[in-house]
Amino acid sequence: MTPIVTLLTDFGLRDPYVGIMKAVILSTAPTARLVDLTHQVGPQNILQGAFALASAVRYCPPATVHLAVVDPGVGSGRDAIVVQTHRARYVAPNNGLLTLALENDRPVRAWRLNRPQYFLPEVSRTFHGRDIFAPVAGHLACGRSPEDMGEPLPLDGLVKLTIPRPEETGGGIRARVVYVDRFGNLVTNLMGADIAHRPVRSVRIAQQFIPFAHTYASVPKGDYLCIWGSTGNLEIACSMGDAGGQLSVGEGVEVTVFLEDSSEAPHGGAAGVTP
Amino acid sequence: MTPIVTLLTDFGLRDPYVGIMKAVILSTAPTARLVDLTHQVGPQNILQGAFALASAVRYCPPATVHLAVVDPGVGSGRDAIVVQTHRARYVAPNNGLLTLALENDRPVRAWRLNRPQYFLPEVSRTFHGRDIFAPVAGHLACGRSPEDMGEPLPLDGLVKLTIPRPEETGGGIRARVVYVDRFGNLVTNLMGADIAHRPVRSVRIAQQFIPFAHTYASVPKGDYLCIWGSTGNLEIACSMGDAGGQLSVGEGVEVTVFLEDSSEAPHGGAAGVTP
Amino acid sequence: MTPIVTLLTDFGLRDPYVGIMKAVILSTAPTARLVDLTHQVGPQNILQGAFALASAVRYCPPATVHLAVVDPGVGSGRDAIVVQTHRARYVAPNNGLLTLALENDRPVRAWRLNRPQYFLPEVSRTFHGRDIFAPVAGHLACGRSPEDMGEPLPLDGLVKLTIPRPEETGGGIRARVVYVDRFGNLVTNLMGADIAHRPVRSVRIAQQFIPFAHTYASVPKGDYLCIWGSTGNLEIACSMGDAGGQLSVGEGVEVTVFLEDSSEAPHGGAAGVTP
Repeated sequence: MTPIVTLLTDFGLRDPYVGIMKAVILSTAPTARLVDLTHQVGPQNILQGAFALASAVRYCPPATVHLAVVDPGVGSGRDAIVVQTHRARYVAPNNGLLTLALENDRPVRAWRLNRPQYFLPEVSRTFHGRDIFAPVAGHLACGRSPEDMGEPLPLDGLVKLTIPRPEETGGGIRARVVYVDRFGNLVTNLMGADIAHRPVRSVRIAQQFIPFAHTYASVPKGDYLCIWGSTGNLEIACSMGDAGGQLSVGEGVEVTVFLEDSSEAPHGGAAGVTP
Repeated sequence: MTPIVTLLTDFGLRDPYVGIMKAVILSTAPTARLVDLTHQVGPQNILQGAFALASAVRYCPPATVHLAVVDPGVGSGRDAIVVQTHRARYVAPNNGLLTLALENDRPVRAWRLNRPQYFLPEVSRTFHGRDIFAPVAGHLACGRSPEDMGEPLPLDGLVKLTIPRPEETGGGIRARVVYVDRFGNLVTNLMGADIAHRPVRSVRIAQQFIPFAHTYASVPKGDYLCIWGSTGNLEIACSMGDAGGQLSVGEGVEVTVFLEDSSEAPHGGAAGVTP
Repeated sequence: MTPIVTLLTDFGLRDPYVGIMKAVILSTAPTARLVDLTHQVGPQNILQGAFALASAVRYCPPATVHLAVVDPGVGSGRDAIVVQTHRARYVAPNNGLLTLALENDRPVRAWRLNRPQYFLPEVSRTFHGRDIFAPVAGHLACGRSPEDMGEPLPLDGLVKLTIPRPEETGGGIRARVVYVDRFGNLVTNLMGADIAHRPVRSVRIAQQFIPFAHTYASVPKGDYLCIWGSTGNLEIACSMGDAGGQLSVGEGVEVTVFLEDSSEAPHGGAAGVTP
């Protein structure tokens, strides 16, 4: 069976760019099954794209081809690469977009794409998604080996983003909002493993203490809560509301996380207790 | 042939949530054909989702699996259900989202999903679309019986929304805008059958009388009209314009509908005659 | 193998209209592979739709069925048509939407759709995408001949849009922005062939001179550039920025293009030199 090809870009859905990439993939791999992860990564926001991709790849069947294009360096000297992992294959610019996905799905081999016979006949300087990445993804979906399409790239040649990590400080754990979703949920970079799965008591953000809860529905409508979200990251949310909008908080903002066994913070009240 | 699985959610397309659900469905049902109905239901707006779903289901082939997730109660005690109708199967939270679809496509049997072996191995408290509804939809698409996956739920255990109905009054029929579409068309809850298919003369909305017309193109550009829309509901529209935006009217607003055989209202003029 | 059916509309993705069209296509052609080109053409903006369609069709495999619906005249006397070209088949309203696509992919024959047995049983006056175009696209995908579904339409009966063309003047080439994409790139109507592929030096737009560059990445972040874009048209862009937003320029705006061999304009500076 032809594998799934997932697509993740910052191309949006207003222009036909994504549809064109799909037409190119299907021209090569007519039976490929295409799954959009998202095309609304912020323009040129590689970190946001990396986060979205990493949250999705574990749910895809083995041998999936992941095509990811957030590519501010298109037309410059940055390489186009294929990475083979234990579970999947990735086609992307070598600009760090795969950083987070490859933390959980370790790379085995990588190639730099340098065989134009696997690209479209004419390669533009502005749309490698169409001219290079899509045809290569199609060939991978058809079973062609990456070795045919590029030269080996040592794994330490893979560009990695510097990802901010949570830090344990005297006054709680310093974390950071790394993603804001459509509901206004503020996804932080703190995962359970970072704190040895110790229970969280509250989060301080925008001068408010937000208490921990196990479900959105367990707090009254309109109240803030922090919760382990669907990606395994700690999130700040608002029951039936938009936490990001109401708190005027976006990606990059620092938060402080307090654990149940720590003594620094009061248990946050429903409306948020100012310290 | 593997049936169609439709998807309707309030997850939006900015985050990879919908793509993840599709990856999960295809992991179970590799040949399922996926059709997005919409993912832009207003966050937690069950009634809007119910309306969108009901307008689509009659156009799907028999045996379609409809996966619908607008789920403010995720993680709470609300049930996850499967409903079998004469034409289709539905997977959804038991919160009224199916109310309107099931009015035209009557339920035959229902089940409460309670067999975790058909869910993802780890079920989060925040994303049952991924962890419960998608894998169950995949199993249904593969031909597995709902009986294997849940316990029977009596049909009167299906949660129903209270849907506002049009009312005949002395001064015209009181109806209500229940949906505003991308063009700004104001879809009301009045259907032809509600008035025994008697001809409509005009609608009063936002202090204006809007005359009835048979097609958008039959009135001059910029004029308002009311018209039987594609869902069979009476709509208020603006030729080549955005009625909702221009009239500053949204969901929930009351309108009064006048019939040809009634005497209460003047025939609305093109620019809207104030009574 | 069942051909690809592409879809291009102005229906947006907020309403279930596109999903309903797909359900109708798959009801007729269960194995059709559906590819969305875009559904976010500006409401009733036939020219924008024509441009988007034309930029995509050359990348689709032979025998693709293109379903395009931007249809302000729905329900009026405008015809619904099928056009057969050397490469593809098109289903659309006869309102000029195919103008640009048919410039590169010449029409061979055309038909006016007039056999209701190939439409949905009930044809509304507001949604021919669902009731006429989608079922006909499905029948085409299944291999049914357009001759069965309509009567011949002479090729000179195809409605054509008047497309603004660039003009060579004493003071540079007068061109026009015809499309603004999601990144704010301003796509003009000037193509390389219009100027015999002579090299471009700069563009004047909104009182600024913008220099030519070969890649987005070759100019400093925040600088404007003009560049041959992925459609072959000259574009005005901003490196890592949104040219359209920053210059407050949209579709229809005039620009003046200066060639390397002309003497009218200084070489535009990075920040834009006012003449």
